[in-house]
Amino acid sequence: MAGNTIGHTFRLTTFGESHGEAIGGIIDGVPSNFSLDLDAVQLELDRRRPGQSDIVTQRKESDTVRFLSGVFENKTTGAPIGFVIENENQKSKDYSHIQDVYRPSHADFTYDKKYGHRDYRGGGRSSARETACRVVAGAIAKQFLSHYGISIHAFVSQIGPIRLSGDLIKISLPEKENKVRCPDEKKAAEMITYLKEIRKAGDTIGGVVFSKITGVPVGLGAPVFDKLHADLGKAMLSINAVKGFEYGSGFSGVEMKGSEHNDVFQSNEKTVTNFSGGIQGGISNGEPIYFRVAFKPVATIMQDQTSINKHGKNVTVQGKGRHDPCVVPRAVPIVEAMAAITVFDHVLRHKTTQI
Amino acid sequence: MAGNTIGHTFRLTTFGESHGEAIGGIIDGVPSNFSLDLDAVQLELDRRRPGQSDIVTQRKESDTVRFLSGVFENKTTGAPIGFVIENENQKSKDYSHIQDVYRPSHADFTYDKKYGHRDYRGGGRSSARETACRVVAGAIAKQFLSHYGISIHAFVSQIGPIRLSGDLIKISLPEKENKVRCPDEKKAAEMITYLKEIRKAGDTIGGVVFSKITGVPVGLGAPVFDKLHADLGKAMLSINAVKGFEYGSGFSGVEMKGSEHNDVFQSNEKTVTNFSGGIQGGISNGEPIYFRVAFKPVATIMQDQTSINKHGKNVTVQGKGRHDPCVVPRAVPIVEAMAAITVFDHVLRHKTTQI
Amino acid sequence: MAGNTIGHTFRLTTFGESHGEAIGGIIDGVPSNFSLDLDAVQLELDRRRPGQSDIVTQRKESDTVRFLSGVFENKTTGAPIGFVIENENQKSKDYSHIQDVYRPSHADFTYDKKYGHRDYRGGGRSSARETACRVVAGAIAKQFLSHYGISIHAFVSQIGPIRLSGDLIKISLPEKENKVRCPDEKKAAEMITYLKEIRKAGDTIGGVVFSKITGVPVGLGAPVFDKLHADLGKAMLSINAVKGFEYGSGFSGVEMKGSEHNDVFQSNEKTVTNFSGGIQGGISNGEPIYFRVAFKPVATIMQDQTSINKHGKNVTVQGKGRHDPCVVPRAVPIVEAMAAITVFDHVLRHKTTQI
Amino acid sequence: MAGNTIGHTFRLTTFGESHGEAIGGIIDGVPSNFSLDLDAVQLELDRRRPGQSDIVTQRKESDTVRFLSGVFENKTTGAPIGFVIENENQKSKDYSHIQDVYRPSHADFTYDKKYGHRDYRGGGRSSARETACRVVAGAIAKQFLSHYGISIHAFVSQIGPIRLSGDLIKISLPEKENKVRCPDEKKAAEMITYLKEIRKAGDTIGGVVFSKITGVPVGLGAPVFDKLHADLGKAMLSINAVKGFEYGSGFSGVEMKGSEHNDVFQSNEKTVTNFSGGIQGGISNGEPIYFRVAFKPVATIMQDQTSINKHGKNVTVQGKGRHDPCVVPRAVPIVEAMAAITVFDHVLRHKTTQI
Repeated sequence: MAGNTIGHTFRLTTFGESHGEAIGGIIDGVPSNFSLDLDAVQLELDRRRPGQSDIVTQRKESDTVRFLSGVFENKTTGAPIGFVIENENQKSKDYSHIQDVYRPSHADFTYDKKYGHRDYRGGGRSSARETACRVVAGAIAKQFLSHYGISIHAFVSQIGPIRLSGDLIKISLPEKENKVRCPDEKKAAEMITYLKEIRKAGDTIGGVVFSKITGVPVGLGAPVFDKLHADLGKAMLSINAVKGFEYGSGFSGVEMKGSEHNDVFQSNEKTVTNFSGGIQGGISNGEPIYFRVAFKPVATIMQDQTSINKHGKNVTVQGKGRHDPCVVPRAVPIVEAMAAITVFDHVLRHKTTQI
Repeated sequence: MAGNTIGHTFRLTTFGESHGEAIGGIIDGVPSNFSLDLDAVQLELDRRRPGQSDIVTQRKESDTVRFLSGVFENKTTGAPIGFVIENENQKSKDYSHIQDVYRPSHADFTYDKKYGHRDYRGGGRSSARETACRVVAGAIAKQFLSHYGISIHAFVSQIGPIRLSGDLIKISLPEKENKVRCPDEKKAAEMITYLKEIRKAGDTIGGVVFSKITGVPVGLGAPVFDKLHADLGKAMLSINAVKGFEYGSGFSGVEMKGSEHNDVFQSNEKTVTNFSGGIQGGISNGEPIYFRVAFKPVATIMQDQTSINKHGKNVTVQGKGRHDPCVVPRAVPIVEAMAAITVFDHVLRHKTTQI
Repeated sequence: MAGNTIGHTFRLTTFGESHGEAIGGIIDGVPSNFSLDLDAVQLELDRRRPGQSDIVTQRKESDTVRFLSGVFENKTTGAPIGFVIENENQKSKDYSHIQDVYRPSHADFTYDKKYGHRDYRGGGRSSARETACRVVAGAIAKQFLSHYGISIHAFVSQIGPIRLSGDLIKISLPEKENKVRCPDEKKAAEMITYLKEIRKAGDTIGGVVFSKITGVPVGLGAPVFDKLHADLGKAMLSINAVKGFEYGSGFSGVEMKGSEHNDVFQSNEKTVTNFSGGIQGGISNGEPIYFRVAFKPVATIMQDQTSINKHGKNVTVQGKGRHDPCVVPRAVPIVEAMAAITVFDHVLRHKTTQI
Repeated sequence: MAGNTIGHTFRLTTFGESHGEAIGGIIDGVPSNFSLDLDAVQLELDRRRPGQSDIVTQRKESDTVRFLSGVFENKTTGAPIGFVIENENQKSKDYSHIQDVYRPSHADFTYDKKYGHRDYRGGGRSSARETACRVVAGAIAKQFLSHYGISIHAFVSQIGPIRLSGDLIKISLPEKENKVRCPDEKKAAEMITYLKEIRKAGDTIGGVVFSKITGVPVGLGAPVFDKLHADLGKAMLSINAVKGFEYGSGFSGVEMKGSEHNDVFQSNEKTVTNFSGGIQGGISNGEPIYFRVAFKPVATIMQDQTSINKHGKNVTVQGKGRHDPCVVPRAVPIVEAMAAITVFDHVLRHKTTQI
């Protein structure tokens, strides 16, 4: 009930706080007898890792995952996969100056009020560090999805005012991502320049991640509460800093008429348009699924801010440390991971629909 | 696993198809010894009912709820509340002409492929009729929330191109809703005129429902997967025709800088701004919660459309029947209901956070 | 969290109190496109019904089930099956004399303390009447199991001091049950005579139900918490008046040596003995599953008993009404139902073990 | 769905196989701001550890638990507690001779058939080694229960033919357990002598663990599926080698009359007798809860046995290794742990019964 598990049949439970001993998780419901490439999991983690380029945080964390169970002779055993990522770099610093401070738009205040006790050395359970565990589970889900011919790809479609235009689902992705993870090289260069300015100003900025899922068979999802897009939406909204989710026509569908928006069938059971975003009535229809995820600007800025401490006194929060000017480049593998976990969960759930 | 339950501690399970005998549900986790006004539940249902005005479907359904358990001498017993709403008006019509047809942007195709069998007389489980059960549970949740001083209100903020502008959370709601459920009477009149034109053209249009939750104590929600806004988002995305969800600054937060977006604390633990939308790190911070829900245009239009049948043959789908030109006026009580179910679930879950 | 749901993938949620409007339930996770004989469900309910013979309670309840959803043209739709059984015979009696009384070994006291409010006209949610809903779901599960060649049969193996001896799993069951549901006609006659004496004395007595499950494939269950026998045990212990559960060698296995108890494999993958009771390491091994369920004597006796009321005052509880002298004859279909629900749930769960 | 989680509000998920890297788990739903003594957890683990006396297996495993999260400055943070116990002593032995063999009454056969792949070096997920994780979670649950005045104690009441007689709930427990964990010193001596003979013969024997829970408030549990004793029963039956569970009068209640078995109330709301075992209608009534758990003889014996391998060929299984002649002395802390997890889960669940 404390909300540290996601998924029904394929499920991930995570633990770990930013400044504790380690983070990790248990992946349950893993089908047995499947060849799993554990090295590929580390590669996904490396996409999320701090310090990978000059436009992300320069924090040093190797984020090396150690698998403890569930795989024998490179094949899954059907037992849960337990894994741990050690927290390095836990210096015994003096935290007394920030111990009582509530940083603006962080979870310090809400966490303190809810739990009455917290690890004031960092974001604790609210730290985005927890998402590393999601990437581990997502990387495993991706390998299973690949067996079913399902692929998931995400990229950055907007940073601040710089955005990709046109039909994003048609953009072909390069073999190798650039450091801002935007497939339009010209826009990517603009974004990088913009991010450097933002960082220089000690500020941060929001962005959008676009994701598409291809090769999805007809029939994944459920018609009522567990609509495929509702589960995808929850998965995305559970990522730190996310403020919005839309799929298919999304918010722009609001101004469309039914006669424009309806996806007319062709004789091959494909549709002429795809405003539905690959999901009708909560169930995949075989067309590509696509959605957009909005991220707010990172709350930690390198500027002085006024705030209060736990005694209600006014304090000044000083900006220091090593943080991302914008979260979306590193959020791309997290979005993919959460999509993979959600879709694979529904692949397994679908197996019990008919006898 | 078939996705007919929502909520963890306060939970609703529903059943029923549009053309079956009845729809209904079971509400479990209802705290005992609470005075419940069952007549107020029917009033909420009446807000969702077809035929209530000239801008909604003229289908005749009284939608009378019958409570079967869980309440004794007007007080909850702690036992689950079972309820039934009979399906009236089930004429034994001839459905053979539509039996095999896949209507565009309906769930006919996906449902048939997933289940291999369906009640072709209507939308079956994918029909919006199911949402009446949500309104029942939501009306009960609202009464409990009222005990805690929590209020939930929603209204129509956009229909097609006509939208409210300004800071929507400051709009004061009238005692009595107009028929389009938009609190700005001038805009409401425009919307009504627009809807009549749309209907005359045999077409439909999308819209947006804005919702706010006030009186929320600090501490509801959880920091990881079950963030309060993630659960709200799933609840909203599970409503028929919803394409998007955003809370607080939402998609517009993407273009903001951290220095603009951060909600600075005042000494009374209130914040100067509320771009966070009342939730920080997945946990309510005591400020009003607000969010927007995007609805696509209704798929049933009164125009001929080309489509296919289950044998892959081309067919023409004729528009007939009694449908809504726009779903949002009747969606307002559904949005409120799903918000109430979600928030009350978290109210109960919060009780176990500390010993 | 209020414990009105059982099962994971095939799941039953029930509602209803003994003196409310109706009882009923929702069966979710029903595979679609399966021919279901709903008349056979009523026949199972009739096996549980009061008044069916002179050794059970003479209460008049027709227990007619009405199905509201999930089945169309005699086939399952994959949607949840909602059903209702009306409570007849709700006379507006005067209950004031028992309103505050705590009957010995009933749930009156615990229920009052837990919930602070109860329907004092009967057992409320603790009434065995709720088990009628289990029989409905069990009868449906049985039909699915039959598709897989799995059969479940239970019978009375002991009433008070009268018990069947020998290897109960080898007893062949008659086409037609006798009224005490004991397949040994001689013992059955003794039991009936004994029950009549017990009833004449205004007393009640306990008993044992033996159950076997045949045709079970290898592989149902899970190795850790959801061992097949652990889920069967919970299902049985959740039936009113049950005090114990044992499977395979059970409590008598305590005095056996490993060299006696081990079930040695033959070359056909069958075992020579079956002390394991068809389950090894929590997973079915293809041998018949068998178990015994102990029921205590019914708490309602036709004798005066001293007790207290809710004000702590001493009162005399008078025995009156129409109750069973022994619960086990009517418990047989309930045991079968709970076994069917549990095993079919594991049949469905097993489908996701391998890709 | 793979059954590696137990509990609803206080919940344990475990991972790990006997010959993998490590075992461990995540405890979720831990109330925050509670002083936790982590050293006391290790002491409970030591009670379960191999090699602690000459009547248990002489396997060398230190079973040292390492806590990774959820506790800061000796107080719980409300975040999940992740922990790991490394598997030491993983020699790279040659396992080829047992790789394909199905040991009698082990899970080798069922596991292989279910999963199609297994770690043949040991019992894998079916190994009793997994129960160490339960002891960790149970030790934490015990500390919370202690805050509420609830105590759980178990002891050995029978080994093979040697059993304690009389009213076991009245037996006072010594400060320090003897090595067979039977509080009757005379019987304990007999048991030890008996176990040494059994081991000398290369055989094993079953036993019974008796457990009582005192200080339980009125009101824990639920009236239908999640009866307190049903959840206790499942928890016990999920322990390796358990074949039966009974509470209160148990199987002996079968031969009692209602007039004997009913627990008559006294004016202090206590009952004269306690055949109910402290639970009425699935809800605790404030009297001590007590139950008995039957364990079969350990399947691993030091004798040659005939069996088959995975190719259906006859083979001889040779007895060798270091195993327990009887599981019950080391099962005592496991029974206590599972009882603690179950009861504390219901303590937390009870908090949401009334507003």
